[in-house]
Amino acid sequence: MAQRGDLMTARADIRVLDATIRDGGLVNNFNFSDEFVNALYRTNVKAGVDYMEFGYKASKELFDVNKFGKWKFCDEADIRSIVGDNNSDMKIAVMADVGRCDYKNDILPKKDSVIDMIRVATYVHQMPAALEMIEDAKAKGYEVVCNIMAISTAKESDLDQALLMVAQSSADGIYIVDSYGSLYPEQIRAISDKYMEVADKYDKYIGMHAHNNQQLAFANTIEATARGVSYLDATMMSIGRSAGNCAMELLISFLKNPKYNIFPVLKFIEEHMLPLKQNGLVWGYDIPYLLTGRLNQHPSSAIDYMKQQRCDYTEFYTDLLEK
Amino acid sequence: MAQRGDLMTARADIRVLDATIRDGGLVNNFNFSDEFVNALYRTNVKAGVDYMEFGYKASKELFDVNKFGKWKFCDEADIRSIVGDNNSDMKIAVMADVGRCDYKNDILPKKDSVIDMIRVATYVHQMPAALEMIEDAKAKGYEVVCNIMAISTAKESDLDQALLMVAQSSADGIYIVDSYGSLYPEQIRAISDKYMEVADKYDKYIGMHAHNNQQLAFANTIEATARGVSYLDATMMSIGRSAGNCAMELLISFLKNPKYNIFPVLKFIEEHMLPLKQNGLVWGYDIPYLLTGRLNQHPSSAIDYMKQQRCDYTEFYTDLLEK
Repeated sequence: MAQRGDLMTARADIRVLDATIRDGGLVNNFNFSDEFVNALYRTNVKAGVDYMEFGYKASKELFDVNKFGKWKFCDEADIRSIVGDNNSDMKIAVMADVGRCDYKNDILPKKDSVIDMIRVATYVHQMPAALEMIEDAKAKGYEVVCNIMAISTAKESDLDQALLMVAQSSADGIYIVDSYGSLYPEQIRAISDKYMEVADKYDKYIGMHAHNNQQLAFANTIEATARGVSYLDATMMSIGRSAGNCAMELLISFLKNPKYNIFPVLKFIEEHMLPLKQNGLVWGYDIPYLLTGRLNQHPSSAIDYMKQQRCDYTEFYTDLLEK
Repeated sequence: MAQRGDLMTARADIRVLDATIRDGGLVNNFNFSDEFVNALYRTNVKAGVDYMEFGYKASKELFDVNKFGKWKFCDEADIRSIVGDNNSDMKIAVMADVGRCDYKNDILPKKDSVIDMIRVATYVHQMPAALEMIEDAKAKGYEVVCNIMAISTAKESDLDQALLMVAQSSADGIYIVDSYGSLYPEQIRAISDKYMEVADKYDKYIGMHAHNNQQLAFANTIEATARGVSYLDATMMSIGRSAGNCAMELLISFLKNPKYNIFPVLKFIEEHMLPLKQNGLVWGYDIPYLLTGRLNQHPSSAIDYMKQQRCDYTEFYTDLLEK
C-alpha cells in the first residue's frame, strides 16, 4: 500500500478518540470524580477531539455496581449529567465487551440516547457473538466499530477470517488493537496495510489502539496513520492499563489539522492528571510492562508485581520465562 | 533504499554503544561513583554491548576540573582504573567536542591508550575544525566517528555538504543525531536513506543517536536500523540530557543476536539506576521536553523549568511560543 498523507498537510479523514475514562478506568476501577469527567469533556471539546469514550456498558448482573465507579456501566442518566444533550461537535462513545454486556437491554435505541458510537470489543474466538452485538447496535441506529483485541497472540489465519467477518457486517469501522504493547512499527505497518485493504474493499474505516509497554504507542499510532488508518485512540498523559496508551498530548501536538489544540490538553493535565499521580495512581511505561510486552503476554502479572511495589526486575523476568 | 534485515534474523553489522556515562553525565555533571562505573563496565561486557562511552575529553583550560566529575575529562589513568587493559570484547569510546577539546595534547597515540574509538561531535558550521580532529585521531590510530549534531535545525543543503565532507575524510562512521528529539520516524527513515547512500559510496557505517522528547527514541532507533543504520546508541533506563536517550533495556530486548543479554541490564537498573532516581536525579520523558522537541528547540529552557519543579505547563508553553 502507498503512504497516505505526509508531515506537512492535514488529513480530513483523521478522527481522534479520547479513551481516558474507559482505559484509564482500568487503573482506578472507574472511580473518577464528576468534576474530573466534566472538565475532561469540556477539554476534549476545546481541543478538537472528535470522540470521547465514557466507559463500558458492563453487565450489572456480572459486575457489582458497588465495587466500581459508574463509568463501568455508563447509564444514560450519568452521561447526560455531564454532557446534557451534548451540544457540541464531539461525539460520545462507549465500549461493549463481548460476553460482559447485556446489550439487548442496556444499549437503548439511538433516538433515546446521547451516545453516538458503540465500540464492540472482542477476541477472535468470539466473533459470532461480536457480530450479533454489532448488528444489534447498528439496528438501533448507532455508528459501530469493532475492536479485535490481542491480535499479537491470534493465529494469522484466524485473524484474517475474523477481519473478513467484520468486513461483511454492518460495522462502520474496525480497530487494530495491540493489547499487550508487543508490536513494533514494522509489524504495525504490515497489519495496517492488511486492514486497509479490507477497509478499501468493504468501505470501512480503520482505527488504532496502542499500548505503551515498549514506548511505542505514539510511534505505532502515527505509523498506522501514515498507512491510511484514520481513527486514533489516545488518553490524557497516556493513562490506561499497565503501560498506558498513546498520549493525547503527543498525538494532538503531532496532528496538523488546525482544529486540534494542545493548549486545553496541557491545562487539563496540569489541573487534573498531575493530582491523580500525586495521589498515588500508577500507570505508564515501566520495566515490568516492557518485559510482558516483549514476551507478548497479558500485562496482568506485571500489574500485580507493580502493586507489590517490587523492584527486583531480574526475579520477575525469571518468573515470566518460567510461564 | 531497501529495508535491511527483518524482525526474525540477526544482523551481523549491528553494534550497540552504551552512552550512559557520557550523556547521563550531562544530568549529574559526571558525578558517578567509581562503584557505579565499575558495575556498568562489567554489566556492558556481560550484556554483549559492543562499545562503552566513558565520557568527554573536555579541555581542562576551558572547564574547571573541580566543578565536574572525572568523566568529563576521561584521563587515561581514570579509565584504566576501571577497565585495566580492557581484556574484553567490548571497545572503549570517548567523545571529543569541537572547540571544547585540546585534542592535540589530550588524545594520546592509540598505542599508549586503552581507548579504541574517538567520537567527534560537531555542528554543521564547525566542519573544518571537525575534520582536523578526525584526521588527528585517525593518524593516532583510532577508530573515528563523526556525530553531526542538531541536524533538525541545520539547512538541508548545509547538512548535505557536511555529510560529503565527512564522507571524504578518514572517519570510519557517521552518526545521525536528533539532538532536540524533534524528528518523527518518517523523517528518520528519509535521513537514514540519505546517510546510507553516502555510507555505501564511501565505505562508512552509519550510527543513530536519538532523544526521547516525543517518546520516539527507541522507535527512531529501530526504524533507522531497518534502513541499514548499524551503530546504535542507548543508555541505561534512557538516562541522558532532558528526556534522555533510547533505553538500553528496550534496545537489547529488541535485538535478535544471541550475544545480547537483557538479564545483566535488568540487574544493573535494579541495583544502580533506581538508587539514582530515588536520590532525586531527574531525567526522562516529561511534558516540557515534549514541547521543546515539538517546537524543534534546544531543551535548555525545559531543563531550567524542570529544575524549578514547576508544573504550570500552559505558562511554559506560552513562553516557548514567545521565543
